[in-house]
Amino acid sequence: MSDFQAWMAGHQERVEAALSNALPLTSHAPTRLHDAMRYAVLGGGKRVRPLLAFAAGELTQADPARVEQAAIAVELIHAYSLVHDDMPAMDNDVLRRGKPTVHVEFDEATALLVGDALQSLAFEILAQPGLVENAAAQVRMLNSLASASGSHGMAGGQAIDLASVGKPLEMPELEFMHILKTGALIRASVTLGALCGKALDATAMGKLDHYSKCVGLAFQVVDDVLDAEASTATLGKTAGKDAAQNKPTYVSLLGLTRAKDLAEELRTDAHDALLGFGPEAERLKQLADYIINRDF
Amino acid sequence: MSDFQAWMAGHQERVEAALSNALPLTSHAPTRLHDAMRYAVLGGGKRVRPLLAFAAGELTQADPARVEQAAIAVELIHAYSLVHDDMPAMDNDVLRRGKPTVHVEFDEATALLVGDALQSLAFEILAQPGLVENAAAQVRMLNSLASASGSHGMAGGQAIDLASVGKPLEMPELEFMHILKTGALIRASVTLGALCGKALDATAMGKLDHYSKCVGLAFQVVDDVLDAEASTATLGKTAGKDAAQNKPTYVSLLGLTRAKDLAEELRTDAHDALLGFGPEAERLKQLADYIINRDF
Repeated sequence: MSDFQAWMAGHQERVEAALSNALPLTSHAPTRLHDAMRYAVLGGGKRVRPLLAFAAGELTQADPARVEQAAIAVELIHAYSLVHDDMPAMDNDVLRRGKPTVHVEFDEATALLVGDALQSLAFEILAQPGLVENAAAQVRMLNSLASASGSHGMAGGQAIDLASVGKPLEMPELEFMHILKTGALIRASVTLGALCGKALDATAMGKLDHYSKCVGLAFQVVDDVLDAEASTATLGKTAGKDAAQNKPTYVSLLGLTRAKDLAEELRTDAHDALLGFGPEAERLKQLADYIINRDF
Repeated sequence: MSDFQAWMAGHQERVEAALSNALPLTSHAPTRLHDAMRYAVLGGGKRVRPLLAFAAGELTQADPARVEQAAIAVELIHAYSLVHDDMPAMDNDVLRRGKPTVHVEFDEATALLVGDALQSLAFEILAQPGLVENAAAQVRMLNSLASASGSHGMAGGQAIDLASVGKPLEMPELEFMHILKTGALIRASVTLGALCGKALDATAMGKLDHYSKCVGLAFQVVDDVLDAEASTATLGKTAGKDAAQNKPTYVSLLGLTRAKDLAEELRTDAHDALLGFGPEAERLKQLADYIINRDF
C-alpha cells in the first residue's frame, strides 16, 4: 500500500466512525427514521468530498478534529442528495453502492424524510458551538455549505438535469449544470476544509478554488466515461442509464476519446493551480489524480 | 382595526416582502425551480412563526431588521415541510391555502427539489455574515434551527405521524409526536427572535421556552379541533382528513369539548409563563390568544 493509499484508508475509516457517531442512534425514537438515516449514510462510498476537505485542511495546517466535522457535514449533504435523487419521481434507481436504495429498502415517505433530516443534521453539525475558534469564520462556512446545496448549487443543478432529459444540451449548458450539480459541493468541501485552518490570502484562495473547479468538472467527465464503459456490477449502481434516458453527457457530446482527453486536461489544470503552494498541497494533487484515474 | 391587528398586518406584510426579496428570481436559472419555490412560499399563510419571532424580539429589544431575517428563515423551513408533506408519498394533498399544491401545479420531482432548496435557503439566510453582532450567538441560532428541523424535531415528528396512521396512539405518544412535529419549530421561532436582542438570563429563557411549548401544543390542539369542525372552504386545505385516514388526534382521544378545554388551559399557562416580564411581553400574550382563538 502506498503512502497515499494508507492516508486515504485511514481517513475513510475516520469519516465512517465520525458519521456513525454523529448519526442518531436507532435506539432513539423515531427508530425507523434513524435506522434508515444510518442505512443511507454508513458502510459505503469512497468519501471523496471528506477526503478533499482533509487534504485542503492539511494545506492550512487545520486541526484534523475540526476538519473531520466539516467533512462529515458535506458528506451528509451528499448522502441526502443521493437518497432523494434515487426516488421514483427523480432518477427512479433501485441500486446504490450495491444495496437497494432507501425508498426500496424502506419506503418512499421514509426516503423523503431521511433526505430532509440528513440535510438538517449537516447544518447542525457544522453549527456546533465552538467548532471553529473564530465564530465569524464558522458562520461563513455555514453560508458556503448552504449556498452550495441550494437552488444556485446542487439542487439547482439537479433541476437543470431533470429538465434536460431528451433535450439536446450544448456544451456550455452541460457545463453550467455540472458546475451546480456536482461542482458546487466539491468546491465547498475544499473551501470548508481550508477555512478550518490558517487564513489564506485572496490569491491563494482563488488558486485553491480553481483547483476544486477543475476537480469538480473532471469528476463529472469521469463519471460519464465510466457510465458509458462500465457494467452495473463494477459500478455498484445501474450503469448505462444516461444513454438509456437520452441524457446529454460529456461522452454523448464529445465522444469517448475526447471526453477522456478533457479529463486529463482538467487534471493538469488542477495540478497547475497548486504550483504556488509547498509540499502541504501534495494530498490535493494526489486526490486529483485519484479522482480522475478511478474506475468506480 | 385594533392595535394588535395593525401590528400583525404590518408584520405579515413585512415578512411577505422579505421573503420575496430573499427568494431567487424567476429570471435566474433554473427558472422553473425558482418559479416553484416562489409559488410554494409567497402569497399565503398567516406567518404565525415569523410573528412569534418578532414578538419575542420585542421582549429583548432586538433590531427588527435582524429579527426579520431570522423570522423568514424559520418560515422557509415551515414552507419546505408543507411542500414535502403534501406529496403523494406522504399526505397526498392536492390543496394548500386554497391553491393546488406544488407537486400538482408543477410535478413531483420539482416539489422534491423545491423543499430541498428551501431548506438550504433557510440556513443560507440565517448564516448571512454579520446578521447578528455576536457571531457565536449566530452559530447557536443556526444550531437551534437545524436541531428543530431534523430527526429530533420536525422531520422526526412527521415520521412518527406517518407511522401512527391507523394505530391507537396513547396521549403521551401523541404529545411526543406534536412536540417534535409542530412544537420544535414554534419554539425555535421564539428562541431565534429573542436571541437577536439582549441576552436573557437562564430563568427568563426557561420561562420563554415554557411559553412557546404551551403555544406549540395549543397550536396543534386547535388544528385538530378545526380539522374536525371546519369545512374545506373555510380551511383552505382538505378538511376532515385526519378522521378519514384514521389518524389519532386530540379530538379523537379527548373528544371535542375536552380538546377545547385543553387549548384554553394551555393559553392560560402561556400567559402565566410571561408574568415576570413587563409590557414588552404584550405581543407574545396577544399572539397566544390569537393562535388559540383562530378559525383558520
